[in-house]
Formats: sequence, C-alpha cells, structure tokens
Amino acid sequence: MTEKPLILVTNDDGINALGIRFLIAIMNTIGDVVVVAPDSPQSGMGHAITLDSTLYVEQVFVDDGPQTEYSCSGTPADCIKLAIREKLTRKPDLCVSGINHGSNSSINVIYSGTMSAAIEAGIEGIPAIGFSLLDYSWNADFEATKQFIKTITENVLKHGLPNGIVLNVNFPKLTKENIKGIKICRQAKANWVEEFDKRKNPQGKDYYWLSGKFVNLDGGEDTDEWALENGYVSVVPVQFDLTAHHYIQDLNTWKLND
Amino acid sequence: MTEKPLILVTNDDGINALGIRFLIAIMNTIGDVVVVAPDSPQSGMGHAITLDSTLYVEQVFVDDGPQTEYSCSGTPADCIKLAIREKLTRKPDLCVSGINHGSNSSINVIYSGTMSAAIEAGIEGIPAIGFSLLDYSWNADFEATKQFIKTITENVLKHGLPNGIVLNVNFPKLTKENIKGIKICRQAKANWVEEFDKRKNPQGKDYYWLSGKFVNLDGGEDTDEWALENGYVSVVPVQFDLTAHHYIQDLNTWKLND
Repeated sequence: MTEKPLILVTNDDGINALGIRFLIAIMNTIGDVVVVAPDSPQSGMGHAITLDSTLYVEQVFVDDGPQTEYSCSGTPADCIKLAIREKLTRKPDLCVSGINHGSNSSINVIYSGTMSAAIEAGIEGIPAIGFSLLDYSWNADFEATKQFIKTITENVLKHGLPNGIVLNVNFPKLTKENIKGIKICRQAKANWVEEFDKRKNPQGKDYYWLSGKFVNLDGGEDTDEWALENGYVSVVPVQFDLTAHHYIQDLNTWKLND
Repeated sequence: MTEKPLILVTNDDGINALGIRFLIAIMNTIGDVVVVAPDSPQSGMGHAITLDSTLYVEQVFVDDGPQTEYSCSGTPADCIKLAIREKLTRKPDLCVSGINHGSNSSINVIYSGTMSAAIEAGIEGIPAIGFSLLDYSWNADFEATKQFIKTITENVLKHGLPNGIVLNVNFPKLTKENIKGIKICRQAKANWVEEFDKRKNPQGKDYYWLSGKFVNLDGGEDTDEWALENGYVSVVPVQFDLTAHHYIQDLNTWKLND
C-alpha cells in the first residue's frame, strides 16, 4: 500500500472562511493535510507578494480535524512560498486553493488571489487546483461541490498535471441535482465595466469605491462562462507562460532594428 | 495632419520614481500625455485591485512638463481603471507603464505591478507596453533606453497590437553603445528559490523577510533571459488568455463525468 498524499491547502478569503473549512474536510478524506492560509481576507490580491514588510506565520487550531494549520500575515502567494520553504518537510503531492466565495472564471482569473496561490504552487512544480463557487456570501452552501471536488482531485493525483499547467475549477450556484456535470473549457473573453462610486469624505475630499458590471464578450459555447451559465462545473487548464507565441513572427516583421 | 496620440502613463514604483519621470519626458515628444500613477511604491503587487478600501486620486504637479498628472492611492491596475472611467475624456491610443526599476522578464511578469497595469489596459482594448530596466537602484540611469523606447512606441502606434496582446520590454543594464539591438522573445522558464530571512521581533516572536535567488531553468536562445544576458533588449508579446489550449484535449480523456 502506498503512503497517503501530502496536500497543501490555502485560499484568499482567510483561514476562517467557510470555503476553506469545507475544502479541508474533503482533503482529510484523501490525504495528509497541511494548511497555510492568510489570517485575513485577501480577495482581489492577484499575484501580489510581500516585499516591503515582514511576514508572520504561526500554528493555529481552528477545528478538530487531523490537519496541521498555519495562519500567515501575507498574501496567498506568500503562503505557498512560506509553506514550501519553511513549514513542509517535503514537497507536497498536491496544492488546492479555495473554495473561493465568488468567481474565478474568465478574466477574473487575473485578479484572483485563489488562483495566484495555485499558480505559485504550479511554478514550484506542484500539481495545483483552484476551486471557486459562484456565491459571494460568507455563508454560501458548498455541499453541492463535494463530490465534484473529490473526483477532480483524485484524477489530478492519478494523472498528474504537466509542468506549467494548473486547473481553474468554478462551480455554478446550484444544488447537486441541478448540476449537469463537468466541462473542460477555455477562458471566456470578458471584462469588467467599472462604475466607480464617487463620494466625499467628512473633510470634503473626493474618494471612490471600485465597483462594476461583469460583461461576457464571448459567444463561444466552449468557454467557462457558457458552462457555468448552462449548469456545468467549468475546468480550465491555466498556464503561466504568458507568451503569445503565435504573435512572435508578426512582431519580427516590424524590423525594429532597422 | 492628424491629431497627436493620447498616451496614458503609469508605473508601479510610484509617481515620483525616476523611471516614470524619464518615460513621461519621452512620451511628451510623441503625444499628449496623461499620467495616473500610484502615490507610493507598489512593487510585487501583481494584478491586485482595491476592493475593500477607498481610492483617492488627485491632480498633482511634479515637474514643468506639458503632461497632466494624477496621483492615486491604489494599485497600478486601479490607476488604469480610474484613468479610463474617471479622468480621461476619451479612450487613450496607447498606455505605457514603467520604466520599472528592476526586472519583469521571465516569471517576474507574474508578480509585476508594471505589467499588471499594461495588462489591465490591454483588457480595455488599449495597445499597451510595459518597460523595465534591469537595475533596482532608485537612481538608475535610464539614458540608454531612450531611443529604443521611442522606436518601440512609435511602432506600436503605427502597427497597433491585436486584441488580447500587450508587450513586455526589458532592458539590460548596459550603456547604449553596448546594447546589441532588440530581440523578440518568449518568456523563459524560471523561478525564484526563496531563502526566507527568519528573525525574532523584540517580543520574541518569529517573523520572516521574503528574499530569494533567481534561477533560469531554460536553456533556449529564444528567451527573454538569454536576450538580456547577451546584451539585447527583450520584447515579449504577453497574453492574458491564460488557457492552456493544447491541454484541453488531454483533460477530456480523463472522462470526469463517468
């Protein structure tokens, strides 16, 4: 019999969020779990890392599970770096991040702290998955995601993932019975049209709150947005080689050295 | 005669950094310049956006140039969003970000606030370029970059860039005479091997400083790292569709719905 896999768990909503508690419980049924997660919410942090201030990381006991847990003052990407270099005795077999309360689909992957943690693990050569449920509420019901998360996780442990690729998994806000299945997708072309909420502070100075409307610009039926709107769990393979390889030849025709 | 192009300038080292002052001076020779840049350094911010606190943006006068300038309390990506929605009267013809004091080559693109601003502009359909000089010192000498920045910028204005692609330009720390030319490259495979500096605070509690060693894992001669090491300016076309399209077919063989 083989050893249980070592699974590193993190998120961007903070170590006490319901989403990561739910994910830890699932991972405890699959392997040995070590959690290194932010001590406070880090949504929208993208791939930020902490260069100009100190990082604290300390062991905490949040619930009665068998997992070992550390709370960290840094970003999701910091958590992965600290876990690998300072807290784990060996390279984990898998890293899972989430379950995010919200969306990491389409262009949201760019802003996502959840996915930046998965990507950071991917950079370190660790198979990694980010999970997100399209429900922003703190008390979102994650029950419908359980069996899908088990299936996807066990498949990643079985097949592995090629170097340079991590998975971005999003769940529609539906009951288990209403989810039609899992779809492998590409990232939809979409953006946010910001509508800044402009206010005056008590001293009369203008300030803004960032808010906006999500716009799907992509009519394709092979996208994550289409899958989610049509009742599927979306799985997008994500790479962090950002090179637009197909455009290199065009750029060479500009003859920039002439 | 056509109108002068409208150029939006930002960075991640803050509006007073020498790199952005140098870039503004070059852009003033090419078009009408509006600056919206962070009021303080934002290195390593990745694609962070400000969701849970307020944003201030106010007009400032930093030097005698013809540009209009705004200082913003947010991240580089926030600066682009605020510029487009609140400060510019029309969509700019170009966005340039930098000149960063440091490196945005290879895996550094993922952590780069400079490049996140360029990518944010790209998401908005604006041709965008991030510039970086491989010199971390605050008083770096940017002189050698001037003619190359003019050439690359004028070419982007002439040819445009396809939707979904921005340029990542890095300069070696060399005198103009020693720079061999411009090379169109792909992003090298590389990572950082962190060496956390563990210390105790006056209360006896452990804390860490993030530091590390850059490791180029890529032997290719078509990479940005190779170009920079061999005296060339590197230009990498960068995309923000992160889908690993070539891996979708493989994932489908996992039969996750069986």
